Amino acid sequence: MQIEPQSFDRVLSSMCTAPHPVAREAAERFLATNPGDPGTYPNVAALEKDAIATLGEIAGLEDPSGYVASGGTEANIQAIRIARDRAETRTPNVVMPESGHFSFQKAADVLGVELRIVPTDDDFRADLEAVRSCVDAETAMVVGVAGTTEYGRVDPIPELGEIARSVGALLHVDAAWGGFVLPFTDHEWHFGHAAVDTMAIDPHKMGQAAVPAGGLLVRSDHLLDELAVDTPYLESTSQATLTGTRSGAGVASAVAAMDELWPDGYRQQYVRSQHNAEWLADALEKRGYDVVDPTLPLVAADLPRSTFDALRDEGWRISRTGTGELRVVCMPHVTREMLASFIGDLDRLEVRASVPVVSDD
Amino acid sequence: MQIEPQSFDRVLSSMCTAPHPVAREAAERFLATNPGDPGTYPNVAALEKDAIATLGEIAGLEDPSGYVASGGTEANIQAIRIARDRAETRTPNVVMPESGHFSFQKAADVLGVELRIVPTDDDFRADLEAVRSCVDAETAMVVGVAGTTEYGRVDPIPELGEIARSVGALLHVDAAWGGFVLPFTDHEWHFGHAAVDTMAIDPHKMGQAAVPAGGLLVRSDHLLDELAVDTPYLESTSQATLTGTRSGAGVASAVAAMDELWPDGYRQQYVRSQHNAEWLADALEKRGYDVVDPTLPLVAADLPRSTFDALRDEGWRISRTGTGELRVVCMPHVTREMLASFIGDLDRLEVRASVPVVSDD
Repeated sequence: MQIEPQSFDRVLSSMCTAPHPVAREAAERFLATNPGDPGTYPNVAALEKDAIATLGEIAGLEDPSGYVASGGTEANIQAIRIARDRAETRTPNVVMPESGHFSFQKAADVLGVELRIVPTDDDFRADLEAVRSCVDAETAMVVGVAGTTEYGRVDPIPELGEIARSVGALLHVDAAWGGFVLPFTDHEWHFGHAAVDTMAIDPHKMGQAAVPAGGLLVRSDHLLDELAVDTPYLESTSQATLTGTRSGAGVASAVAAMDELWPDGYRQQYVRSQHNAEWLADALEKRGYDVVDPTLPLVAADLPRSTFDALRDEGWRISRTGTGELRVVCMPHVTREMLASFIGDLDRLEVRASVPVVSDD
Repeated sequence: MQIEPQSFDRVLSSMCTAPHPVAREAAERFLATNPGDPGTYPNVAALEKDAIATLGEIAGLEDPSGYVASGGTEANIQAIRIARDRAETRTPNVVMPESGHFSFQKAADVLGVELRIVPTDDDFRADLEAVRSCVDAETAMVVGVAGTTEYGRVDPIPELGEIARSVGALLHVDAAWGGFVLPFTDHEWHFGHAAVDTMAIDPHKMGQAAVPAGGLLVRSDHLLDELAVDTPYLESTSQATLTGTRSGAGVASAVAAMDELWPDGYRQQYVRSQHNAEWLADALEKRGYDVVDPTLPLVAADLPRSTFDALRDEGWRISRTGTGELRVVCMPHVTREMLASFIGDLDRLEVRASVPVVSDD
């Protein structure tokens, strides 16, 4: 098989990154294990408990329940499933800001739940008034995002928790990307700050673990039990995960990465990534682009479509927001040199674009 | 992180196995890729097309649709989801023999679909009369298993296809485990043999790929489209998978394993595994146990509970069926020497158990 994966040299579009060397080593060592079968693979099943304990520490939850999921999408689906199955109504709804990740639409489709999407405010955060007007007696869950996909914003999580409580709904926080940088900021986003019931927090994003290693954290065992389907198997009486066979490589890499990097390595990484994002935002602003000032290590700016396409043609992997802005995610593999090279190419392409074509006749 | 995974030396309980060396190498090479983001990771996204093409070849489907899933559970959930979303009734049901895998119960729970479980016959295969009596106008899908979890049986797939067609339902074949050995037998189990609409077939079981690499095959694009949820992303307009971020390691390992082993390597493996199963069945029969004669490389026998527990205490990872029989899966890592050692321990433990305790007073 001759194909090689492409390098990370020009990847500015991904919320995943190169796994940390200790995470890679652990993934390779545990490649042939399956934590979904704890009777056969007890060692990696034990490691998963370690992973959840550390995720709980990161997310301000003292006695965490949860598991290492295939990714944030599964964590989000399972959170909505907990809410749906706990709700008394047969027509539950979930209220979410428009900045919520696409996986909530997938969850609503899979689970047969109504998803109510409310506007964000001028700073791309959940509009609390809109959320308050939208929830009702059949609301099973309110979703807040801690590190939004498009703008890296943090919703007002404590207030969203109060709104959820006021209608007897659960609060789910999607910190899939933000969870490994937010501990080093002043934002209020986790179980210790607010009435959070469930959370998505992915080691395989800013946590630098190998894919697949997402995380679902749940405040209590009885909530997690809503997911349990009785099994006929010898070693486990019920299974709360969405998948069956699971990747031990992902679990082991999550433990190895967190052992190595929490908290100091992650703190250093946050500082470096945030500085990179601010440098990029500044460079783009100087060049006259409208830039969404980075709260977290993610930058959005209104590049013209033609410039965007030209940069992609140069090999830059970049994303666009729903309203067409450039989006750059400053992951651990993104260096200042890469960003400088990106800006250099941007300058060169803009010059070329602004030079009129001269005909010779 | 000091923990090591346990070795495969005494693992007789798993439907997963050590990945083939070429599969391991490919998994490591593609560890930091995500086929769920084809715009950023185009090379592994292209590899996935190769994987589906080869799975189609194995399963008798000329122009296959599908994708590399997290595992057989996801493939089974998604198949039921296709049937649910295509059905005209708001109360669809799925009819399945009792030998069907636990994941169908999980699917019914997640998707809000009624699961009707019908008895198997004296040879542990779907009872066609029972299936016929059970389907009705609201049946959206009939499930047949090609390589059952407990007894390695193959359901009468062509007849199940006719029953499904007779009520306008889809036929799903769960060949998650059986799909990589059945091509070398006379069983009729795939798209070329019967009116099969969807299939689960997992490279990370008998296919010797690394976890996670399951497979969902679908007869046509329009059926697969039932799963598509529109996305706001730049590079893909819809996403048919259950998860978001996915493991490029799994996809690459599936391609590498199948390139290397299909068909000759898999054929040799089937012959070896089937001979091992027959040797074990024979050894157990000679010792007076009731053995379910292995159709495929999987042996069940009625060991007493105490013997089973004693063998587990010796470190053997073994499973029990729902009715308490020993189950041994003869995967590629299971050697004749392992089985001989197992029988040796069995003999020693049975002797010890049969010697009365003599008291000295």
